Amino acid sequence: MDRSKLEDLLKRRFFYDQSFAIYGGISGLYDYGPMGCALKSNIVQQWRKHFILAENMLEVECSALTPERVLKASGHVDRFVDWMKKETTTQVKAELIDILNRLDGLNNKDMHQVITTYGFKSPSTGNDLSEPVSFNLMFPTQIGPTGDFKAYLRPETAQGIFINFKRLLEFNQGKLPFAAAQIGAGFRNEISPRQGLIRVREFTMCEIEHFVDPDDKKHAKFSKVANVVMTLFTACDQVDNKGTKTMTIGEAVEQGIVDNETLGYYMARTHLFLESVGVHKDKLRFRQHMSTEMAHYAKDCWDAECRTSYGWIECVGHADRACYDLSSHSKATGVKLQAEQKLPAPRKENLPKAVFNKANLGQKYKASSKQIVTVVESYDVDQLNELRAALDGSSTYPLKINDEVFQLTKDLVEVRLVESTVHVEVIVPSVIEPSFGVGRIMYAVLEHAFRQRDGDEKRLYLELPASIAPVKCSILTLMKKDVFNPLVDMVQEELSSHEHSFKVDDGAGSIGRRYSRTDEIGIPFGVTIDYESVDAPHTVTLRHAQSMQQIRIKISELGELIEDLVKNRRQWADVIKEFPVLGAAVE
Amino acid sequence: MDRSKLEDLLKRRFFYDQSFAIYGGISGLYDYGPMGCALKSNIVQQWRKHFILAENMLEVECSALTPERVLKASGHVDRFVDWMKKETTTQVKAELIDILNRLDGLNNKDMHQVITTYGFKSPSTGNDLSEPVSFNLMFPTQIGPTGDFKAYLRPETAQGIFINFKRLLEFNQGKLPFAAAQIGAGFRNEISPRQGLIRVREFTMCEIEHFVDPDDKKHAKFSKVANVVMTLFTACDQVDNKGTKTMTIGEAVEQGIVDNETLGYYMARTHLFLESVGVHKDKLRFRQHMSTEMAHYAKDCWDAECRTSYGWIECVGHADRACYDLSSHSKATGVKLQAEQKLPAPRKENLPKAVFNKANLGQKYKASSKQIVTVVESYDVDQLNELRAALDGSSTYPLKINDEVFQLTKDLVEVRLVESTVHVEVIVPSVIEPSFGVGRIMYAVLEHAFRQRDGDEKRLYLELPASIAPVKCSILTLMKKDVFNPLVDMVQEELSSHEHSFKVDDGAGSIGRRYSRTDEIGIPFGVTIDYESVDAPHTVTLRHAQSMQQIRIKISELGELIEDLVKNRRQWADVIKEFPVLGAAVE
Repeated sequence: MDRSKLEDLLKRRFFYDQSFAIYGGISGLYDYGPMGCALKSNIVQQWRKHFILAENMLEVECSALTPERVLKASGHVDRFVDWMKKETTTQVKAELIDILNRLDGLNNKDMHQVITTYGFKSPSTGNDLSEPVSFNLMFPTQIGPTGDFKAYLRPETAQGIFINFKRLLEFNQGKLPFAAAQIGAGFRNEISPRQGLIRVREFTMCEIEHFVDPDDKKHAKFSKVANVVMTLFTACDQVDNKGTKTMTIGEAVEQGIVDNETLGYYMARTHLFLESVGVHKDKLRFRQHMSTEMAHYAKDCWDAECRTSYGWIECVGHADRACYDLSSHSKATGVKLQAEQKLPAPRKENLPKAVFNKANLGQKYKASSKQIVTVVESYDVDQLNELRAALDGSSTYPLKINDEVFQLTKDLVEVRLVESTVHVEVIVPSVIEPSFGVGRIMYAVLEHAFRQRDGDEKRLYLELPASIAPVKCSILTLMKKDVFNPLVDMVQEELSSHEHSFKVDDGAGSIGRRYSRTDEIGIPFGVTIDYESVDAPHTVTLRHAQSMQQIRIKISELGELIEDLVKNRRQWADVIKEFPVLGAAVE
Repeated sequence: MDRSKLEDLLKRRFFYDQSFAIYGGISGLYDYGPMGCALKSNIVQQWRKHFILAENMLEVECSALTPERVLKASGHVDRFVDWMKKETTTQVKAELIDILNRLDGLNNKDMHQVITTYGFKSPSTGNDLSEPVSFNLMFPTQIGPTGDFKAYLRPETAQGIFINFKRLLEFNQGKLPFAAAQIGAGFRNEISPRQGLIRVREFTMCEIEHFVDPDDKKHAKFSKVANVVMTLFTACDQVDNKGTKTMTIGEAVEQGIVDNETLGYYMARTHLFLESVGVHKDKLRFRQHMSTEMAHYAKDCWDAECRTSYGWIECVGHADRACYDLSSHSKATGVKLQAEQKLPAPRKENLPKAVFNKANLGQKYKASSKQIVTVVESYDVDQLNELRAALDGSSTYPLKINDEVFQLTKDLVEVRLVESTVHVEVIVPSVIEPSFGVGRIMYAVLEHAFRQRDGDEKRLYLELPASIAPVKCSILTLMKKDVFNPLVDMVQEELSSHEHSFKVDDGAGSIGRRYSRTDEIGIPFGVTIDYESVDAPHTVTLRHAQSMQQIRIKISELGELIEDLVKNRRQWADVIKEFPVLGAAVE
């Protein structure tokens, strides 16, 4: 893989290029040109079909502008940071960040300790390093004219789904499990964006949040994917410096290598999706997070990694995030983000219940009383027990609402046990989250599709699956002649009526050179109009770029045949059984 | 139209709702739920087909994060402001902004003058108003860790296209005219967001920039739309308090009411698009901007306005922006954003040419000399003539590069006339810009689709075109019985194989009540599985929501029939000729 040749092609044919180049460019920001835009849009559409439509997921589209409070609750304001070293070069910063990323979860004191312990020095000066400076990866802004309503651009689309959990559960008629999904932009103010599309500041994500009973993570459709063969790189094997394992996802879940069926189901579906858009099976592995990499609340995480010239890059994360996100937003807002599940039979239970002395409360906290009651009444059993324990023990319980703290004491509230008949059980669902980086997947697909014709290193081409190719068909004329013009229109109309994208190349050059131009941008099929096309019934040649084979076909049959090929309902190998292959064309 | 009933429906069935509601909500930000998300996505897909695919436009996707320099050049930093009055209520601010909007183009001194002249007072206190405070409508942020690289979220997607003009022209093999398009988010920090989806802070836009020779704005496909009948509200008729005119776009262009064919072509195409997604023809008009509304550089502007319960609202703008945008970015960057057109025959011309005295220049401006030469060498004929005039006249010419000013004098540079053979003519293309607000269009469509069944005001429904309905088909069983389960699976598979979205409602209630639930969200077709379905050949009833008529059909034929209906290849009126209508169902 000659990366510079691929990059040259992608720039020259405007798949994508640096944003604001005429203004000097901004690193980490890219504009997609017509080819990149169509390719990306096809990958996203395929994703929508493969996940949202096929699984009847609830798709949402939430605001990218996000108030600070939301991202405080989610942990992003405090923990979504990178570390900068003062007085070092960009190069050193980047290397250091790579090291430090692996030490994620340390605060800056601990990190300084690590630096001291390992004796890291500034490679340029040999001096000791100063204390690391933390830097939040989110872009700050303000909402409203006064500028005091602090907000950030969302670093992921997931939070919008969690915040809408109640509405979505209601939409799903209160039933678990269900999955919601979002396709949208994410923003990260990377310190040192690099590696083209791999580490950028603005990107498209596709995220799924699958809400499920924490005690029952079986998946109804698991048997449909149980036989998918996967390449797994377990945490243990990474520690032990061993290689990857190849097994079915059914075996992996059975052996406890992958934590549960739902997580396994999504890993297998991701595997199938990535293959369908052109990722090569032998350049795909699923790497398990080591316990040091995972957030404290996460149960099990697996990254789908694609091999590229930059090494193995993470393209899709799969995380069992337990109930962390819903609980955090519940806590911050006092709104219960939970589901009810009917018990097999009703049962009697002694349940804690908060009983307020409203006179005392009103006297002490006046207008805030109502809010205090609302928050405590929204408490679940665990929270009420905690309140009871606090009142019994230290006899005071600090209740934080927004930024105010109210001290609850026994003369204000008491927690009593009351016998109740319970019909349903209240649970905070666990969340299984597959999260796709579209730009990274697209880059991996482009590397995996990049080829050169045997014996001609100038004839570069992209072998993309027809379903995601930016343009489905080229239209060429044997030479520039007026007699061909109405036929070009006829072919265009036939292709348009089937909603196929096409590109007319009536430019200069031999047919071979023009095919070569269309191959370069991965156009899978090529129509050529020649003298034989002029007489009715009007026929043209149809070229299959991958094999360079050609057949002759009526213009009126083109649309349907190409549709069948693009949708994988028919294979080229079968087409040439019906239509004889023409003698080799001069290319 | 009872707006509160529609709003209740849209909230209850989660088309869209306020963002961050559990955190108290942020005005002007909305989250789209599954129904709104699908509806919006279908409108956008229809737009892509109607414009990008049908016209072979060059689609791009550019960064939303935009450096300040770019938006300075485009005029947004200085002119994209709203005006706030200190010490007035929100209500007053809003009213005042409405008045002031009509006076756009005034600076704050002039505006203060207007206020004084007209004697505007604060309605709450009766006091004089303080001087207006300008407030930029863009969201500020910083790129990079040091925080000193100022940027904004783009207020429109158009600038990304202008900045990529060179790459796009090259992609189009240097030929004019061509159109580029972008679908993406725009952000405006509105002072007082209101009217639901009409005035929001984050929104999806679809924008087209059609680049054309300023001296030839004919459109090759104009004859295809010339007969489209439009409702036009001209600037003159607005001034004269007259009503709208109804005429074909062909007549409007011929009579000079619409400035040129290209502008007229897009207006007609927009008319057809809006109708196709469900805007009612009799609630659609094209209103011409009055000269006071237009930016100084604009030639002619027409807004497509839809009538809603909020009055006439602008949904699509159509502007002939002349060469303003390309010229502005050229000037700011020194990069020529222009096209070459081959002359019918070469001609001799005396052309100005800058000749530097490099010794003097180097002595005076040292390291900056090279940059000065580059910028001046990029000058076009007009700029060189201006330079010559300046040197001849005041004998000094201030050259601004970024924020530095260099004084050019005769001893540094001279402009000579040199005879040259000219083969091409260099032009800065004019831009015709149709710009679509997707949220506003969607809201208009929802209002126009909102109905209630005769004689039953509780039975509300949405009559959306099948092509944009969020869900294409409902699947109901006569009652909850295990015997129907395999048939439900069979129908699901049949619909999935044709990529139709569907919603299974096996919940409680009579068939009639369940149909009513599906009508409410605009599902155009409903399948019911009954006892007759159990025996082979398995058949079901198919209900057409709009007419409430039902037919009986084989499950295996459902997918194709619904596809034909959704794609408008077949009408229901024709379907019932083939399949007899069943006796009225109990609803």
